[in-house]
Amino acid sequence: MMRINIKECADILSNQDNILIITHAHPDGDTLGSGFALCRALLKLGKKARVICADEIQTKYLNAIGELEMPEFKEDFVVAVDVATINLLGDIAESYGDKIDLCIDHHNSNTGYAKYTLLDGTAAAACETVMEVIKALGVSIDKDIANCLFTGISTDTGCFRYASTSAATFKAASELVELGAENGKINRIMFETKTKTYAAIERLALEGMQFFLNDRVCVITVTQDMYKQTGSQESETEALPSLTRQIEGVEVGLTIREKTNGECKCSIRTFERVDASKLAAFFGGGGHSQASACRFECSVEEAKKLLVEKCEELLG
Amino acid sequence: MMRINIKECADILSNQDNILIITHAHPDGDTLGSGFALCRALLKLGKKARVICADEIQTKYLNAIGELEMPEFKEDFVVAVDVATINLLGDIAESYGDKIDLCIDHHNSNTGYAKYTLLDGTAAAACETVMEVIKALGVSIDKDIANCLFTGISTDTGCFRYASTSAATFKAASELVELGAENGKINRIMFETKTKTYAAIERLALEGMQFFLNDRVCVITVTQDMYKQTGSQESETEALPSLTRQIEGVEVGLTIREKTNGECKCSIRTFERVDASKLAAFFGGGGHSQASACRFECSVEEAKKLLVEKCEELLG
Repeated sequence: MMRINIKECADILSNQDNILIITHAHPDGDTLGSGFALCRALLKLGKKARVICADEIQTKYLNAIGELEMPEFKEDFVVAVDVATINLLGDIAESYGDKIDLCIDHHNSNTGYAKYTLLDGTAAAACETVMEVIKALGVSIDKDIANCLFTGISTDTGCFRYASTSAATFKAASELVELGAENGKINRIMFETKTKTYAAIERLALEGMQFFLNDRVCVITVTQDMYKQTGSQESETEALPSLTRQIEGVEVGLTIREKTNGECKCSIRTFERVDASKLAAFFGGGGHSQASACRFECSVEEAKKLLVEKCEELLG
Repeated sequence: MMRINIKECADILSNQDNILIITHAHPDGDTLGSGFALCRALLKLGKKARVICADEIQTKYLNAIGELEMPEFKEDFVVAVDVATINLLGDIAESYGDKIDLCIDHHNSNTGYAKYTLLDGTAAAACETVMEVIKALGVSIDKDIANCLFTGISTDTGCFRYASTSAATFKAASELVELGAENGKINRIMFETKTKTYAAIERLALEGMQFFLNDRVCVITVTQDMYKQTGSQESETEALPSLTRQIEGVEVGLTIREKTNGECKCSIRTFERVDASKLAAFFGGGGHSQASACRFECSVEEAKKLLVEKCEELLG
């Protein structure tokens, strides 16, 4: 593995053609924004380029980044964007995991699986780095590219809310809006729109919200019955965990979702005082210090009991 | 009334001392950020300056903009910031309404009540304009001033979510973060923290959410009884109106709050198709095209009926 800089990355891409770009599985705004922005830039240079992904792309992302017709070809060069490890490629890891020529990423945990790696761990989004690469390629950023890049930056920063948002992030956003990015429309799609079924399950989840240990632990539970009752599904409920942590005084937020096989999964959100990855690790899971997850081969009620007991130990 | 530009505004302020700065009543992040940023800048120039406000400042704003010791003095010059009409001064309108020398604002509806008016209707926040005035005054923006200005810009744009957020807004945010604004901390205080009493009333409000006209109109009602039941109060419920508009398919969101005297107030939120200020104007209120408000001298239920009828007319 060789670490490269922006200019070297642009030089390498300039010398290649028939470029396949791969996003991570369960694709989010940053991996898609990075992939499609780079693809559009390479197409503008007269190259053949295509983006692929192990899973279906949610409509909201397609609406934000815009659809793109891409040519078919046999790839000569493979680029992964916003992918920290080959496991995250999902079902296409087997076909491409050992064939990644170039990786553009912003995760410090990147395992260095690619031949060349362009990694900026200070970037709030991979799109920040892709933007610099596109400039170095000499491609002028048009409205479509700007929309892709803005989507990635906006979604990976929780709409500029997270502490990861830097002066450089805001500067990139300013440039992209200047270049035509439809920030109002994109943010409305990504942050202001709840499906009716999500709104219904969110309401049920809030109704059933419970507090433990002097209100320092907040628990939301989502059962299969609640999915049936509201017509919602698990893929829609990614915003629920953040609700647990928003309440004043809460130090640990737990969102326990029942799976179809009777097992369940818990998303953990914490603030500085409690390390979410440690709590998850105790139950065989993992993640970041303020956001992690673990699984249980038991009922939601039993999992809740185990988790609250462990929280009592950690919170002292 | 005389319209002035940034430079003229700075020149006028440079020639004054004993400057009283007034925010609007029920102060929000933009009026407070503008007032305290300007006050800090004038104090740095060796002038006497003080900020006053008709109502108490919520703790969350104090935590974001930082506390400031201000001198006592008899004012020679009065500045209003982010105040579109003298009515918005609240209980101090009577004492100062006809004594405003200078107004710095970003509302196109500004009534021109001040002797000099610096108005930039394209600014997403009054703080964007105050920032330019501070620069023109020759004051270097320190971390405290940057925090005030960032708070105003971030809150008035819904954390950079609204379509009013321009390239210039992002550029200002970038500069402020560069100058030391604690964007992560401020956004967490303003957008990631709910009091327990607010969480309780939000839950009740969502439980009682109603839909009309094929789900194109969403109504939240907040009664005095709900405040009693949850220990919450009206000043805490400013985030409720945005909940109405977030649901897919909703074109008009109405949040009707019962006042202590049995009258009620409605906050209106819309998307492009419906002009919120027109709907409010029909009932004697006003505001912006996507956010407005009006009052009713009747019960919540009657107001709801009147509003939904009018919506039926507007939505056709």
